[in-house]
Amino acid sequence: MIPGMTTPRSLTVLGSTGSIGTSTLDVLRQLGGRDAFDILALTGADNIELLAAQAKEFGAKLAVTANDEKYEALKVALAGTGIAVAAGKNGLTEAAEMDAGWVMAAIAGTPGLAPTITAAKRGADIALANKECLVSAGDVFIRTIKQGGGKLIPVDSEHSAIFQCLEGNPRQSLERILLTASGGPFRTWTKEQMAGVTVEAAKAHPNWSMGLKVSIGSATMFNKALEMIEAKFLFDVSAEQIEVIIHPQSIIHSMVSYHDGSVIAQLGCPDMRTAISYALTYPERAPLNVDRLDFAKLAKLDFEAPDEQRFPALRLARTALERGGVQGAVLSAADETAFHAFVEGRISFLHMAEAVEFAMDRMADGRTANSMDDIIAADQHARILAEDYIAQTEKAA
Amino acid sequence: MIPGMTTPRSLTVLGSTGSIGTSTLDVLRQLGGRDAFDILALTGADNIELLAAQAKEFGAKLAVTANDEKYEALKVALAGTGIAVAAGKNGLTEAAEMDAGWVMAAIAGTPGLAPTITAAKRGADIALANKECLVSAGDVFIRTIKQGGGKLIPVDSEHSAIFQCLEGNPRQSLERILLTASGGPFRTWTKEQMAGVTVEAAKAHPNWSMGLKVSIGSATMFNKALEMIEAKFLFDVSAEQIEVIIHPQSIIHSMVSYHDGSVIAQLGCPDMRTAISYALTYPERAPLNVDRLDFAKLAKLDFEAPDEQRFPALRLARTALERGGVQGAVLSAADETAFHAFVEGRISFLHMAEAVEFAMDRMADGRTANSMDDIIAADQHARILAEDYIAQTEKAA
Repeated sequence: MIPGMTTPRSLTVLGSTGSIGTSTLDVLRQLGGRDAFDILALTGADNIELLAAQAKEFGAKLAVTANDEKYEALKVALAGTGIAVAAGKNGLTEAAEMDAGWVMAAIAGTPGLAPTITAAKRGADIALANKECLVSAGDVFIRTIKQGGGKLIPVDSEHSAIFQCLEGNPRQSLERILLTASGGPFRTWTKEQMAGVTVEAAKAHPNWSMGLKVSIGSATMFNKALEMIEAKFLFDVSAEQIEVIIHPQSIIHSMVSYHDGSVIAQLGCPDMRTAISYALTYPERAPLNVDRLDFAKLAKLDFEAPDEQRFPALRLARTALERGGVQGAVLSAADETAFHAFVEGRISFLHMAEAVEFAMDRMADGRTANSMDDIIAADQHARILAEDYIAQTEKAA
Repeated sequence: MIPGMTTPRSLTVLGSTGSIGTSTLDVLRQLGGRDAFDILALTGADNIELLAAQAKEFGAKLAVTANDEKYEALKVALAGTGIAVAAGKNGLTEAAEMDAGWVMAAIAGTPGLAPTITAAKRGADIALANKECLVSAGDVFIRTIKQGGGKLIPVDSEHSAIFQCLEGNPRQSLERILLTASGGPFRTWTKEQMAGVTVEAAKAHPNWSMGLKVSIGSATMFNKALEMIEAKFLFDVSAEQIEVIIHPQSIIHSMVSYHDGSVIAQLGCPDMRTAISYALTYPERAPLNVDRLDFAKLAKLDFEAPDEQRFPALRLARTALERGGVQGAVLSAADETAFHAFVEGRISFLHMAEAVEFAMDRMADGRTANSMDDIIAADQHARILAEDYIAQTEKAA
């Protein structure tokens, strides 16, 4: 079905019922479904009906719900199909340990860490959609990937773009990573205007439809901060080599500049399926039924320098990269805590970055992130510090 | 000197005293000169002083003037250096036959054909700056390259961009070549306005400084027509797979779209040296002291659909590609004849395309271009037909 691929690839999808997961299965259908991919395990959480339907459609060997309490329901839903069923953390480990050559790591947040690392350890090629593996646990995760010997292909559109722009080019000639950012809904707002931003206003991302956390992260540019940290680990570059460029149309998904003055860019319509497909078919490309770019219709692409005064998230990412160690985990955890406080109306829009900076500065003692225990401890401590800051801010208001 | 290259590359530069030639030597200086490249032969024409200085600076084994009458002068200029001297067609053949692993083919026009084909025949890797090898003699030249077994790397910025965008991507996933064009100085003019264009106005190309033929070709878009034909042979694509996009800033040098919806673009400041360096160091990239792109400063990139009504050259290129055979040679030769007639004030700006179309239509009898004799005959016949049209037009005026 896929030019260049002669036998079906064995694949496990961790998190098949979420946003990336359902897009992944949509891509798999386009790529020839069971003719092109041999699905070993699918995992979900609470949407048992969808998970069971997916497992049946793709002939999975194993279906796993992350929620122990849904085990019986999944078992009933798959009774008589011959599809094995498991649940909880052990179930996820079982799914990750199955002998799939490729694993789509699409469980969001901290719960995605353990199963993705399990798959990396046994040398699976990883299509990575989980951010925490790199932002919080970058050192550990990259070490695990190297030891396992598998490939690591990013699924995020920006990192997929950079990955594509690096293909076929000598690694030592890389000069800079040019990470594009839409700038979010407040790109042109003053700091004073942003101080009064509501959750509703922050949700309105101009180019992509996305979940609340991602929408707010686009408005604060904390998403871009996380992507900067991911880029550092994915492409083994320094903080100075990562440049953020505001590009409101989000058509150029990112670029790489080389030391001969050449810049390679990857462009496309805003559709996650191209990056998902690339990560599943690499180094091949499969024909996809997605919109094609029409440059005459686009008419123009705009660029601006980012403003780290109005968007301190970018400055904080750079600080985290320079400090290293657990600072990525701290930034990520404190951002999550601050996000919840903002959504609950406890703090204002601008306080989010302040809470993150507070936690980062108090944990800037050079502590290393050499084990998952280091990372989990830092994550928990950062959440407590951010909550301290939030509580103080509430009291002062 | 060049990361990834452990031993000096042996190189012959055909046409070292011209525009591309002198830029090539400038690049060679930046890349480490004689430490990185072992120069076998340099060839020029009338500028003996420059040719001799170049040969001495780079320690060439052989210096050749294409002009037989300059043989003595070159001999005198290089007396006592131990550098061999030759002249004329035989001299160029001698240079092309020397055992250089790489040959920069930078002799412009029809005189560049024979020595480039000689180098291709013996399997040299060719950095190609000569247009006629592909536009006029595409079938013969590509067959020769394949039989010789050498690589073919384009030097023209658009084709270098496409070449770079194809690297690291599976060939069968290529969908379209997106050839960018500045649109020239008359991009926004009506056909009526263009009818009265003078040579002086047509010379003013907005982005690149270039010779008169290239400036006029930018204004008529015949340059882009030639590039479309070159692209067909370089990348083995059909006429339908070649799309021209007007991009006035000339920052995106060209793009490739793939069947998964992904578009890869190559960008840079308008500086030939990046493409020259890439062609000489491929598959490596060497550090170059050229301007870097600053996207915040660029602010925007514009795109438009080309207008084949106002710029019939694009339509004629498509016709030539669809007809095949000698039509590329006819287009190129008739364009040259028409260009001279325009510069001499014999015909108007819009008559140039008419003369080309006249010759193409009269030679649309499916004649093949399987040998250099076929091509030379077609070239000569096309010039006579174009001249017929020009003479008629003069009489009518």
